[in-house]
Amino acid sequence: MDVRDHTGLLQVVFEPQTQPEASKLGARLRSEWVVCVKGQLRLRKDPNPKMPTGAVELLASEVTVLNTVSRPLPFAVSDAEEKEQAREEVRLRHRVLDLRRPRMAANLRMRHALVRCMRRFLEDDQGFIEVETPMLTRSTPEGARDYLVPSRLQAGEWYALPQSPQLFKQMLMVAGYDRYYQIARCFRDEDLRADRQPEFTQLDMELAFTDADGIMALMEQLIARCFSAVLGVQVPLPLPHMTYADAMAKYGSDKPDLRYGLEFIDVSQAVAGCSFRVFAGALADGGCVKAIRLPQGSRVSNSRLKPPKGDIVSEAIAAGAAGLAFMRVQAGGAIDAAKPIKEGLDEQQLAALLAATQAEEGDLLLFAAGPTPTVNKALDRVRQYLAKDLNLIDSSAHNLLWVTDWPMFEYNEDEQRLEALHHPFTAPNPQDVEAAGGDLRGARAQAYDMVYNGVEIGGGSLRIYRRDIQQKVFDAIGLSHEEAEAKFGYLLDCFELGAPPHGGIAFGLDRLAMLFAGAPSIRDVIAFPKTTQAQCALTGAPAAVADAQLGELHVAVVREQAAAGDGAAAQPDIVVKHQA
Amino acid sequence: MDVRDHTGLLQVVFEPQTQPEASKLGARLRSEWVVCVKGQLRLRKDPNPKMPTGAVELLASEVTVLNTVSRPLPFAVSDAEEKEQAREEVRLRHRVLDLRRPRMAANLRMRHALVRCMRRFLEDDQGFIEVETPMLTRSTPEGARDYLVPSRLQAGEWYALPQSPQLFKQMLMVAGYDRYYQIARCFRDEDLRADRQPEFTQLDMELAFTDADGIMALMEQLIARCFSAVLGVQVPLPLPHMTYADAMAKYGSDKPDLRYGLEFIDVSQAVAGCSFRVFAGALADGGCVKAIRLPQGSRVSNSRLKPPKGDIVSEAIAAGAAGLAFMRVQAGGAIDAAKPIKEGLDEQQLAALLAATQAEEGDLLLFAAGPTPTVNKALDRVRQYLAKDLNLIDSSAHNLLWVTDWPMFEYNEDEQRLEALHHPFTAPNPQDVEAAGGDLRGARAQAYDMVYNGVEIGGGSLRIYRRDIQQKVFDAIGLSHEEAEAKFGYLLDCFELGAPPHGGIAFGLDRLAMLFAGAPSIRDVIAFPKTTQAQCALTGAPAAVADAQLGELHVAVVREQAAAGDGAAAQPDIVVKHQA
Repeated sequence: MDVRDHTGLLQVVFEPQTQPEASKLGARLRSEWVVCVKGQLRLRKDPNPKMPTGAVELLASEVTVLNTVSRPLPFAVSDAEEKEQAREEVRLRHRVLDLRRPRMAANLRMRHALVRCMRRFLEDDQGFIEVETPMLTRSTPEGARDYLVPSRLQAGEWYALPQSPQLFKQMLMVAGYDRYYQIARCFRDEDLRADRQPEFTQLDMELAFTDADGIMALMEQLIARCFSAVLGVQVPLPLPHMTYADAMAKYGSDKPDLRYGLEFIDVSQAVAGCSFRVFAGALADGGCVKAIRLPQGSRVSNSRLKPPKGDIVSEAIAAGAAGLAFMRVQAGGAIDAAKPIKEGLDEQQLAALLAATQAEEGDLLLFAAGPTPTVNKALDRVRQYLAKDLNLIDSSAHNLLWVTDWPMFEYNEDEQRLEALHHPFTAPNPQDVEAAGGDLRGARAQAYDMVYNGVEIGGGSLRIYRRDIQQKVFDAIGLSHEEAEAKFGYLLDCFELGAPPHGGIAFGLDRLAMLFAGAPSIRDVIAFPKTTQAQCALTGAPAAVADAQLGELHVAVVREQAAAGDGAAAQPDIVVKHQA
Repeated sequence: MDVRDHTGLLQVVFEPQTQPEASKLGARLRSEWVVCVKGQLRLRKDPNPKMPTGAVELLASEVTVLNTVSRPLPFAVSDAEEKEQAREEVRLRHRVLDLRRPRMAANLRMRHALVRCMRRFLEDDQGFIEVETPMLTRSTPEGARDYLVPSRLQAGEWYALPQSPQLFKQMLMVAGYDRYYQIARCFRDEDLRADRQPEFTQLDMELAFTDADGIMALMEQLIARCFSAVLGVQVPLPLPHMTYADAMAKYGSDKPDLRYGLEFIDVSQAVAGCSFRVFAGALADGGCVKAIRLPQGSRVSNSRLKPPKGDIVSEAIAAGAAGLAFMRVQAGGAIDAAKPIKEGLDEQQLAALLAATQAEEGDLLLFAAGPTPTVNKALDRVRQYLAKDLNLIDSSAHNLLWVTDWPMFEYNEDEQRLEALHHPFTAPNPQDVEAAGGDLRGARAQAYDMVYNGVEIGGGSLRIYRRDIQQKVFDAIGLSHEEAEAKFGYLLDCFELGAPPHGGIAFGLDRLAMLFAGAPSIRDVIAFPKTTQAQCALTGAPAAVADAQLGELHVAVVREQAAAGDGAAAQPDIVVKHQA
């Protein structure tokens, strides 16, 4: 019999001849019972080198049953491959069993080790202090949707759960705390995606009297320490920096995965003036033509990539492109391509194209043409598809980089206004603002994201610490002075009380732990996660509550019901259910 | 000029002769501006031994103003005694200034050091792992009032913010995690008291496969470590244990302050049969008579305590007693007391009384008589009053003890039912249950509180880990099988999947930090606390939110308005304000 505790397994043996009592009880034990076994530890005759305790066994002399299992187990507690496939809903409903599985236990222990490593680095090596910020705070509807909490004492008023401790940590800087960190629970009531949780955890930090380079240098030390301490992986420092503009140009992504190449090559200049309708049209509309080169020497088999390959094309189309063009380079600079392409490029354009792409005999070129954002999006997806399909990703690689110099704003087509790409407290690049005569709408932000194997694991920025500049940013995003004062007046006031230059960053702890664990979902590194419907399969939260509870909070549930009767598209009635 | 950063103060000097530029700018600097000063550090001619940096000064050669102060400061950033008295409302509204005060900065740094010490002990010495439990969970209206959060995706359903991670930590034990801890934010929407916050922080722990003595032994090591590391105070271990019954009998309190004596002496037997109406009546009604003896030898001055002393009596009356009786012991065992007392006690009763109280010449005896709970409550208050008034409290003393063997239940007069004194997951004493033939209603609980200088700083218990016993407790508090299943079915299910014996404890971190800091309020050890009206003076939370936000959450605010018109006591109208 194997006995498991939090440290692992131990084999227990019963000898009916010498220990009849214990053996009799031992024969009655069943899976997952809780027992206390006393006995003699001895060397095994048949050691099991796969088990850490495989050299020994316990000869049971006394067995006490502390608790039994009185219902059928919904699944076995093991990491066996088929069990991993147990429907996640079942695993979440019986989470205490699921958490007993060695893989889940290892995940949660690894997460603990990761957080521990972070804390030690920040506290012991870098002088950070941990400060708790409020959970019941004020709604700031600038970002995602808030979770709200009705106030009992202030009828009709609401707290909001924090989307991040952003404003509080900035106020701590103004209060002179210099280096703050917190493992902070954050909340966003966003629409559903497979790997999103309504509540999530950030390693949140802020520093005063430093600049972006100083913060990045410190943060990459922190992350390298975690890789080393938790995974035993040495990350070479300093990390490479890539501007947002470069990342978009070369990889069509603000979080490029550099474990493999397949960089985009802008061939717009090379093909300018060509008569191939697709290329010429894109350029005429102010767009671009970009290529990805698949070298002959790589593990690419010609036959598999014979154009057009349906899957690549459908990836590009799914990303919004009209299609992809293909070209195979042949001996002597000749090309094999569809007739319109061959005929649409003259000798000079073709030579310029081959020079720009450095394509050689046997190489395959893929092209996308159109508006630059569409081309980037399509080729990003194609690039990721190719990397998987051609097995180009070194799964043992740990590629980390900084993406810097983000734009301050992006245009929100729906609302016909600029909105902050990071958040409206991000400081603009002062050179850009000066060059634009004080206009910061086109400026780059002093913002930086850390990217790991194509996933954003952390992001931050220098912050604005002057009221006039903060007001300009609010102006740019269309927040009136009155609105700004009502929503963020306390922050603006702080900037008038002697605010130091400061900046910070937050790392997504759930995601980082997932990547460290090699887990397929962040739910595998959270003890009690919510389902994709934001429900707790274990406790049944959320749930109905007593009307009396709602009455005390001065709120009522509003139920919308389709009006009964005729088939016309009726306005929903609002039925108010209120307390007794 | 003094310059302050997070490490302290430094004196900066300007020499107009040698550094005219810097001096000119230096003369313009004002309080709380943010500056960067470069210069030469040199020994001071007039060292200030009171300042850690008092031996040196910085001769400024270059000054850069990083930010100015552009509004009048509401108060000066100093610990000067009069400023400490600044109205707390003002301090909270301008919290960033308030947090710059050395005292507040020291408080938050001390709190950090305290938490750090706890983590290190638990993680490094004791093998605990930190696990995060959910904040969006299910309402369990057994305890205090929950904060509720409407669900957008499940119309009409609500999350609750946790009052503690109790059920989740028990499930972690069932899941095999053995030793769990968390610095856990908890929420209770309780009625107002000066030193209560709607959100507060606990050091929360749970252990499997141990007993109450094991948990207490470990926890007192933890707390002793904190006293040593943070305050430099050595706490002698093991801590004394006192049963709840003893604490109530001797001190009328479940959190006795043992920095001073003034134990209660039950003199019911001694005075049994006396004709003093107050004593006789109390005993006839099943109550008791208890005394506190103030020895002559103490710092008690006879004149000050000449009975009746209004203040003591009003304390006793405020606690529900009808009054206090006094008796001064004179030479030869005579007594000085009010006539009804003197005449109501015969010689034998008086002798028994003096023997029971060990009273000697000059001692003063105070008596309370009545129902035992009333007597305890009154004398507890009198005892605390006397200790302060007579200056009996050694303010340098650190008195820690365990109060053990709490009752499982207390009777709720309002609801005419038993309710759990700790919480309904507390394990009963098995000997008591066995002695009562399985009935656990009169049993003691396997519960323990740690008390520090008369304040409860932590409390915990062994937990129930068998479904049948848990069901019996639910029965005792009047929770039907159906209700129990609906509210706690997931926990009951867990107990059938192999649940180990386990127990735990939680320490109130805010309160402990307040006591460690010697601060008058927990608000002084919380960066951004709420007011006693559960509001944030800084951000204005809670606040009104847009109707559209509420509409998405399927809720509406219910406003009660007094009906206009005639003077009759009208029923409040319910006006429902709903979304567009």
